[in-house]
Formats: sequence, C-alpha cells, structure tokens
Amino acid sequence: MDTAPPQSLHAAIAQDRTDHLNRTPAFALPPDVIYLVGHSLGPATHNALAQVQDTAVKAWAQGLVRSWNDAGWMDLAANASGRIAPLIGAKPSEVTVTDSVSVNLFKLAAAALKLARTPTIVVETDEFPTDAYVAESLASLAGTRFGTAPPESGMDALEKGGILIKSAVNYRTAARADMLAFEAAARANGAQIVWDLSHAAGATWLDLTAAGANLAAGCTYKYLNGGPGSPGYVFVSERISESLRNPIAGWFGHADPFAFEPAYTPLPGAARFSTGTPPILSLAALEAALSVFEGIDSAALAAKTHGLTALAAQRAASMGLNVIQSHSRGAHVAIQHTDGYAIVKALAERGVLADFRTPDTIRLGFAPLYLSFAQVWRAMDILQDVLTTETFKQARFGLRAKVT
Amino acid sequence: MDTAPPQSLHAAIAQDRTDHLNRTPAFALPPDVIYLVGHSLGPATHNALAQVQDTAVKAWAQGLVRSWNDAGWMDLAANASGRIAPLIGAKPSEVTVTDSVSVNLFKLAAAALKLARTPTIVVETDEFPTDAYVAESLASLAGTRFGTAPPESGMDALEKGGILIKSAVNYRTAARADMLAFEAAARANGAQIVWDLSHAAGATWLDLTAAGANLAAGCTYKYLNGGPGSPGYVFVSERISESLRNPIAGWFGHADPFAFEPAYTPLPGAARFSTGTPPILSLAALEAALSVFEGIDSAALAAKTHGLTALAAQRAASMGLNVIQSHSRGAHVAIQHTDGYAIVKALAERGVLADFRTPDTIRLGFAPLYLSFAQVWRAMDILQDVLTTETFKQARFGLRAKVT
Repeated sequence: MDTAPPQSLHAAIAQDRTDHLNRTPAFALPPDVIYLVGHSLGPATHNALAQVQDTAVKAWAQGLVRSWNDAGWMDLAANASGRIAPLIGAKPSEVTVTDSVSVNLFKLAAAALKLARTPTIVVETDEFPTDAYVAESLASLAGTRFGTAPPESGMDALEKGGILIKSAVNYRTAARADMLAFEAAARANGAQIVWDLSHAAGATWLDLTAAGANLAAGCTYKYLNGGPGSPGYVFVSERISESLRNPIAGWFGHADPFAFEPAYTPLPGAARFSTGTPPILSLAALEAALSVFEGIDSAALAAKTHGLTALAAQRAASMGLNVIQSHSRGAHVAIQHTDGYAIVKALAERGVLADFRTPDTIRLGFAPLYLSFAQVWRAMDILQDVLTTETFKQARFGLRAKVT
Repeated sequence: MDTAPPQSLHAAIAQDRTDHLNRTPAFALPPDVIYLVGHSLGPATHNALAQVQDTAVKAWAQGLVRSWNDAGWMDLAANASGRIAPLIGAKPSEVTVTDSVSVNLFKLAAAALKLARTPTIVVETDEFPTDAYVAESLASLAGTRFGTAPPESGMDALEKGGILIKSAVNYRTAARADMLAFEAAARANGAQIVWDLSHAAGATWLDLTAAGANLAAGCTYKYLNGGPGSPGYVFVSERISESLRNPIAGWFGHADPFAFEPAYTPLPGAARFSTGTPPILSLAALEAALSVFEGIDSAALAAKTHGLTALAAQRAASMGLNVIQSHSRGAHVAIQHTDGYAIVKALAERGVLADFRTPDTIRLGFAPLYLSFAQVWRAMDILQDVLTTETFKQARFGLRAKVT
C-alpha cells in the first residue's frame, strides 16, 4: 500500500480501493460517526457483542458454574493471549492476559528488581501518570528507589543499570520510542525496561523479539478493541520467564489451580503472571474482538496507520495548527491548542469524535481496521470548518474532558 | 422466621410460605435445576443480564468513549460498593470494588505491614491456597516473613503481633470464625487481620464495624451473584483509611484521575485502594445484580441460611454421611466422602448442582435469596436416592472437579 498521504478526497477514495485492511463491516460503529478515539476506547465488533450476550445468557445464566469447563472459560485468557502475541512480535507462551495495565506494570517492575543491576525504578515525567504512581508505590513497598527522568531522557537513566518503565508510544504526544536502541542501551548497562505498549499495540509496528525486549505490559481496550476496561496483558520473554516469580502469586498463575496445593508451582511462560479469577464477561468480549486481527501483522497495520496519521498531520499543519512532531509517530496525531476542549466539543457535534488531554492537547486517533482515508479526509474538512466558523472564547481555561 | 429445620416436605413448604427473602423471580435460573453452587458462582439475575446487554450494545457500541460520562461508567464501582457495604456492616466510603480477591488481599496485607507490631504475614494451612500464595510472594517482595499456622490456630499467631489473613468462612469446611474474638486478640497484641469475606458475604451475618475489623477483601461472584470473575472489593475501616497508602497506586485511586498530575493524591476512604481501569462489562453485571439485596440485611440472610444449612446437615447426617461440623457454620455444608466426585456427578445428572473439592469434600451451598426449604428438602431426597441406588467404584481416586 502507498503510505504517502493522498492530496485530495478523490485520491483518498482511490487509496481506499487498494486497502486490504478494511474491516469496517466487522465493527458495530454508528453510521453517523467518524471515530478518532480508538486510542482511548476501541469500538465494539459485532462478534464481541454476540460473544458477550452468549456468555451472559447461555454460559452464565443457563450453564452456571459448569461453564468454567463447558463454555471454555478456562481457555479464554490463553486464547486472547495467543491472538495478541503476533501483533507484538511474541510467541503465545510469552503473553498472558490478566489484570489491569497498572497492576501488570507493578508485577513486571517488581519482577525486574532482581534482574537489574540497580533496583531503582525510573519513569519519564511525561509518561501516563499511573506509570509513575505504580513505580513510586512499588519502590516504597520493596524498599528501593523511585526516580523521574525528563521527557525523552530515559535512555540516560538506563546507564545507571536501573529499571525504566517506558511507553512504546507516548499517550499524549504519540512519540514513538526506538525500542531497539533502548534495549541495546539496557543490555550494555545491566538495566531493564518494562515497556508500556498501551498506545502502540494493534495499530503500530511492534516486534518485541527483534527488539530484544524482556518485559512489557499493555492495554486491550484501545486499538485492540476489547471493550471498556477489558483486562490487560503482560509480555515476558521466554529467555527469562522461567527465572521470574510473580510478585502477586495467585491460583490462576498456578500450574494446577484445582489441586489446591499449599505450595505455589507456577505455570510455565508468561502465564505465571496471572493472579486471580479473570472477569469473564469482559475477557470474553476481548477474546472475540481480537479475531478481527487474524492474518494481519503489525507491519501491515503500521503501514496504513502511517498513511492515515500523515494525512491528518499534513492537513492539520496546513490549517496552521500546532501539530506535535516527533522523530517517529504512533497511531494518533496530537495538536496543541488553548481552545482544544472547545474544538473537540465542536467536532463531536459534527460527528467527528476526538479527545482532549489537559491542559491543551487534542488527540486524533487513527485505527487502521475501521477508518478509511476518505473518512480521515472528511474529518479534516470538518476540523477546518470548525476552525473557520467557530469562536472559542468560552472554554479557554478550567474545563476538562472526562474521557479516558 | 423459624430457623429450626423442617422435618417433612410439608413442613418445608409451610416454612417457605413465611419466607420474606424469596427473590427467586429475580433470578434467571433454569427451571430444572436445584442450584447448590452459589458458594462458587452465583446465578444470573434478570437485571444483570439486561444491564450487560445494555452496556455492550448501547453504551459501548453506540455511546463509545462518551459512555464513561454519559452511561455512568465512572460511577459503577462506587454504586456497587455502596450496595455491598450494608451486607458486611460497613459504610459505603469504607468499601471499594476493584481488582480480584487475590490482588486485593495483596494490597491490604501490604498496607497492614506498617500497622502491625511485627511485619510477619501468617496464613492458616487450610485456607484457600491463593491466600498463602499471595502472602508468601508479598513477604518476598517486601523483604519480610511469611509463616503458616495449623488450621484454626490463627488466634495464636496474633499473639506475636503479626498480620493474619483469615477467612470469615472457610472455603472447604464452612467453619465460621469468631470475628469479635479474633479482632480483640489482634487489638491486644498489636496484630492486624485481613479478613477474606469471599465465602461469607451475601449469605451470612457480617458486621465488620461491630467486630472492630480494620481490613477485609471479598469476592463478588459467589453469594453476591456478580457474574463469573466479577471484580472483588476491599473494606478499609474509616479509622485507618486516611493513614494508609495503596501499594499499587494507579489512576483510578487518584483524587482527580483526569488531571494527569505527576503527584499521586489518593481518593478519600477505601476508594484509594482502586488501581486501574475496571472491567466495565463485568462491573456493570455486578452493580445490577447487587440490587437484589436492597432492603435486606445480613442478619436476615443469615437466619434463612442457617435454616437451610441446618436442614441439609441434619438430613445428610441421618443418611450416615460424614458432615463436617464446626462451632459455627457459614452458608455451605461440607460432606467428606471418598466417592465425593462421583456423587456430585450423579446429583448433577438428576438436576442438583453441587461441587467437589479435592480430595474428598462435597460442598452444598445454600444461598438464601433463590433457594426454598422445599427445594433443599427435594435435593436431599435426591441425594438419598443417589446413595441408595448407585455404586461408586469408578471414581475412587484421581478425578478432580474443574469448577471453582
């Protein structure tokens, strides 16, 4: 696919004709919406909705407790993990779906304490705040140190041989980390990196194996479309998984949970980082939703994402907007504007859903499976219309969008 | 209500006529089943099924990310917590729905490390195994000690001023702890107890305030009928909550999660023990399911539960079965039998669902809102029929029920 942005609606439509990633019919999106918030909450797929209904009405209500076996509830996490693995460049045994991103970052950073030369946990100050909250509370519990690093300076922190929690794609700016370079620096210094893949997986290129990554956690309700608050996942390289212990050991990470053994014998691979009983309704939606990625690799996703974001960034810049640039971009385009909240509201009134991050950042997310070049072209037309016809006095300060 | 067990089907039916706790119409139970596994997975309520469908098809698929505000997703955990609070003798601000039981036990035991005179974490050896796995892994991470105590000897462990993780009702035997006596011993010795309410809440009497309890965690998918793997909850007494920190701090425990502040400012009350984004589909089912308890207190639940379990225990004993006795029983009746697995299978074939715990324990659970005395009478008739008509040679060893 040609990833240079089309220069007209006509060219956008032409580009859509050669798009092999169009899975729009699989999604239950409202017809009157252009959805640019896949970086926050992915839309529902028809099969996820069907699976939720089936799980509730048949498996739970009719099958009752028998459904742990009969409806395959015990296999859901492994099935979902197996579908995520190829999207991040991992083997199925290196991925396990469990808990929230926050809890998973905690687990992995805790496990890394014994791997790193220095047990200091560092987070760059422009990361998603929860990453720093988790690191600081973990350091307090484990009796070790927490430190912050200025934006984009995590590489320096690695020189001290510590643990860096680092986003593959920054939640605000969409800046993409050079994972190979970071991992090389970590190896050279005895440091460890816990990657946060939340804003990367499902829309950008990821190859954890090629990068030599050891540890990563990610979110499934953004570009993976798992549903609101669907469980997160961890990646643990098979090079190290057998030597690690889950700091929150629970029966779902046990090799034989129903033997009720007093001794904890972990499952092989990443699955040892499972802990408690998973939320089945949410997990079932995720497991179904992931099937939309079947046969698609992250390089293909990234190629289209790059085309969509390049189109949006180019047109936004041509409107005189302050587009945040970086050496490499993930799957959203960030625009700084003091009237950002009002602009997002005006876009929503015209059917273009975007979001806003305090204090001044508009985020437009470009998920490759349900967005076309023509839709992005139209969305940018609508943005241009908003900018030329609206005045944004009412929302200069103090407003905050309560979306995630 | 008379809680002495009826001595005939006729008397059972008569007792059902005076039962003010019958909420059977609220439940979507199959008509051909007597469900005695509420201690493992509670059945679906009609309104939980409706709420799941509504949350998936309307809020997620149509409302998309807007539903965090418009569909009240941000309020679900607090609403559910407020419905659990009166069932455990707590104020709404002392309860927060979050994560799994395992993760919650970890959080509370970690928070207790600074409260207890001695930071040793102790678990009785006949507790649900995950409680010990969690305690041991926490002790390893925090650089403190983990110890086991023989069954029913947790009281002795408190004398050393440590931290005891203790079930209010034992998962296997149904033995009920004397919470007041345990808490008095803890206070006298500078010890802390983390109560596991999983097998108690929703079917037995619980008054954490009267007991002087500080910390508790519990499961919502058993007697609270929240659905498979629905999120757990923590109780933190208002006497101590403001002095505690969540060892896995995350944005959902932050006072203003959408301000994206670098500093972690916890929510007031137990809500500071929230961490990541909750699984909304599972949480929505729980929130709806809990409404069935409206206007019912745990003393009323316990009175009926006591009647149902007394009936079952009396009849099982009269069949010569080895019923596990204890000074006080929770909401299930445990029967030891070397052919337990085969008996449970034979019961299931006759429409009576029970469960089995390796190596030899049949568990019959008696949830008060959807079981009648007449149903329990019939279930025990069927058990008698199974015992007199079947031989149990095929399943003496090596079989294991894969239900939770």
